[in-house]
Amino acid sequence: MTHGTSLLGLRDLDRASIEELLDRADFWFDRMSAGAPIPTPRAVVGLMFLEDSTRTRCSFEAAVQRLGHAPVVLNGRGSSTSKGESLRDTAANLAAMGMQALVVRCAVSGGPRVVRDATGLPVINAGDGRHEHPTQGLLDLATLRSRLGSLDGRRILIVGDVLNSRVARSNVHGLAAMGAQVLLVGPASLVPWRLADLSPAVTVAHDLDAVIDTADAVMMLRIQRERDAGRAVAEDYRQAFGLTLARAHRLRPEVPILHPGPVNRGVELDDAVLDDPGRSAVLEQVQRGVAVRMAVLERALAAAGGDD
Amino acid sequence: MTHGTSLLGLRDLDRASIEELLDRADFWFDRMSAGAPIPTPRAVVGLMFLEDSTRTRCSFEAAVQRLGHAPVVLNGRGSSTSKGESLRDTAANLAAMGMQALVVRCAVSGGPRVVRDATGLPVINAGDGRHEHPTQGLLDLATLRSRLGSLDGRRILIVGDVLNSRVARSNVHGLAAMGAQVLLVGPASLVPWRLADLSPAVTVAHDLDAVIDTADAVMMLRIQRERDAGRAVAEDYRQAFGLTLARAHRLRPEVPILHPGPVNRGVELDDAVLDDPGRSAVLEQVQRGVAVRMAVLERALAAAGGDD
Amino acid sequence: MTHGTSLLGLRDLDRASIEELLDRADFWFDRMSAGAPIPTPRAVVGLMFLEDSTRTRCSFEAAVQRLGHAPVVLNGRGSSTSKGESLRDTAANLAAMGMQALVVRCAVSGGPRVVRDATGLPVINAGDGRHEHPTQGLLDLATLRSRLGSLDGRRILIVGDVLNSRVARSNVHGLAAMGAQVLLVGPASLVPWRLADLSPAVTVAHDLDAVIDTADAVMMLRIQRERDAGRAVAEDYRQAFGLTLARAHRLRPEVPILHPGPVNRGVELDDAVLDDPGRSAVLEQVQRGVAVRMAVLERALAAAGGDD
Repeated sequence: MTHGTSLLGLRDLDRASIEELLDRADFWFDRMSAGAPIPTPRAVVGLMFLEDSTRTRCSFEAAVQRLGHAPVVLNGRGSSTSKGESLRDTAANLAAMGMQALVVRCAVSGGPRVVRDATGLPVINAGDGRHEHPTQGLLDLATLRSRLGSLDGRRILIVGDVLNSRVARSNVHGLAAMGAQVLLVGPASLVPWRLADLSPAVTVAHDLDAVIDTADAVMMLRIQRERDAGRAVAEDYRQAFGLTLARAHRLRPEVPILHPGPVNRGVELDDAVLDDPGRSAVLEQVQRGVAVRMAVLERALAAAGGDD
Repeated sequence: MTHGTSLLGLRDLDRASIEELLDRADFWFDRMSAGAPIPTPRAVVGLMFLEDSTRTRCSFEAAVQRLGHAPVVLNGRGSSTSKGESLRDTAANLAAMGMQALVVRCAVSGGPRVVRDATGLPVINAGDGRHEHPTQGLLDLATLRSRLGSLDGRRILIVGDVLNSRVARSNVHGLAAMGAQVLLVGPASLVPWRLADLSPAVTVAHDLDAVIDTADAVMMLRIQRERDAGRAVAEDYRQAFGLTLARAHRLRPEVPILHPGPVNRGVELDDAVLDDPGRSAVLEQVQRGVAVRMAVLERALAAAGGDD
Repeated sequence: MTHGTSLLGLRDLDRASIEELLDRADFWFDRMSAGAPIPTPRAVVGLMFLEDSTRTRCSFEAAVQRLGHAPVVLNGRGSSTSKGESLRDTAANLAAMGMQALVVRCAVSGGPRVVRDATGLPVINAGDGRHEHPTQGLLDLATLRSRLGSLDGRRILIVGDVLNSRVARSNVHGLAAMGAQVLLVGPASLVPWRLADLSPAVTVAHDLDAVIDTADAVMMLRIQRERDAGRAVAEDYRQAFGLTLARAHRLRPEVPILHPGPVNRGVELDDAVLDDPGRSAVLEQVQRGVAVRMAVLERALAAAGGDD
């Protein structure tokens, strides 16, 4: 049984497939920048956002619209799954409605695979539990590639709560496939030694100041701020693992700084670092995000069309 | 004053009108299956979902998009009606915005008729209180017709909470118009004798095992499971009125099994029955649902255009 | 730096600009009434509704769709701003997604200007705090112009909670630019003398019965009914400042009555006044609202295109 071309994670992809997607994303990025016409005819794409995420949902919705297709959004609130229906049954229903592809965000690791198996449709993983967030990984790769030229042998620092981050996990797989070295940095509770088992390309470190000079790029992760913890804890985190202005000055000027957003200003990144257009690639990431999602959707829908 | 062609219930429709809609739904169903091009030009269709229903809303939204039209969704939450505005005033406002048709789901029986009278627009009833859910009725007819060929003289069992079911009510009217015999089955509290007054085509029964052998098709209704009631009550219901695997074996192999969804697995239907593609028509119902809604919307919009 | 053509308030607009927009709105209004074809090609327009407003959101969404463009809606609930992200950062993200214009509704006065400055995109203010609601102002002007012919020297009464009304504020600026006289009427707590400083065209009055005979048009504002206050207070308000049937009879027959909606029936307006099609312009306001928003969006997008 052929499933069209899903994107469940970057661990599934080899370097050639990643580069093909990145090239197509660059194509869309250039056309968007120039004001692209829309390819017809229209497909209906289901956006199953069982976990809230306005930002990622808007980016996918813009990508669907820019391709000339029609998005239909199913949110978690008030959905049949909230009436006790299983993910599998909800997905089978959307597929029966004639959706030609499904974008799935859910709290359960592996949910998108369940959806693909239940429907036979091309499924794009828009973030599942602690597993992967492959379009975020691809847009990070696209941004890094545009800044660094090639990723081969480059040393990428990923800093923060790696343990709980699907963004980090997708980046590890994608960066390894592209030939980069990945250094995971954070407190031992959030970056345990065993994360080095993710890939031979990965090293683990717990002292940011000891390794920051060696970076070709730095990716900061979002800290889930505890509401009760408050300012003191946030300031402790900033002192140990934040990209402060002082630390940023130790980076070579061309070293790009990434963050999946939304940024906790003054915690992961100082304002002066985030708002420095020469260093901060944060808005370029968002911009390339739509282009990456267009490339991924287009691939998914081409495969679906090819089955007819 | 002409109102375009609304669909407020199946009780309003004669057999010829129903068959015309079913034929057009089959046309769309076939084209969807083959990958249909989209008819232009675009109309704006308002989806007033004052009662939450992700599944039906997605199906209507997909139908609007597949026809090449543009949906604008108004939800109950945060709407003007939640600020105390009447249904009539909210509807008049949407109509003034130039919507060319309105799809209305609401908790009040008769709400869609109020909307039609207030606006003069074609109105599609997407489920109103305990009254009707005519597009569900039509998609059930379309599914039954595709499985049984003709409905004339066929014996259709509707099992469960008929008293509170707008789905059952629409089916009774539609099945009667199509020449079928309807047997309503369930406990006396949910299927009182007086339901036989709905139509001369209706008979009432309270013992599923006594009548199941005679069925040409079986439609199971969703039980609203009480959160406090729990497993014991659900199991009691299953024993008396569930379509268990044992009961399913008493049906002839070609007898289709329908359910409007979402299914409480292991209560109304055993997993092995629901997931048997030869018997279960549940996903075909969903699939034909989009085609039926396309046929109904198209009829509504053609009439609206005809007034110009 | 050129920003495309935003619409942040009516105070920014001179009479010629307002008339140009009104003329274009009339063009769209006429075409909508006649069943207009859609101009291509498609732009993606972000609707940032950080404050709930189904009615205004539906109107903008219909306008975007009627122009053949694609809306992407970001609601306040569950958005990144609810995770503590600033308006500026949220806006910069949407802009990076390639939205070609942003419509902004927010609780903070001046929010749309922040968004424009942060993004460089054309921004349409859809209501910000107590500041302005310029498309509402324009649709009121369009309605008044269609009813009165010219606004020069006309005397427009605005009655109610002027102090807290962004609708009133936009109308004052727009009406003044169009050469009308504005009389603000209400209790001193809601219409303090200092509101006369808004424009030389403004006069303040506290006794509706003393001035109603002089009106060329009457615009009633919505009262935020306190849930605890109840009927007695509402009836007191009606007696002093409501447009009762008795008061309406003191108006010349051709004097139009406006209200931004949703109306508290029996408080600001008696049913018999609201539902009198000869007097009440309330639904015409809604109808012209979509046309006005088409004109404003079209101007915004034309300017954006002109920058390429």
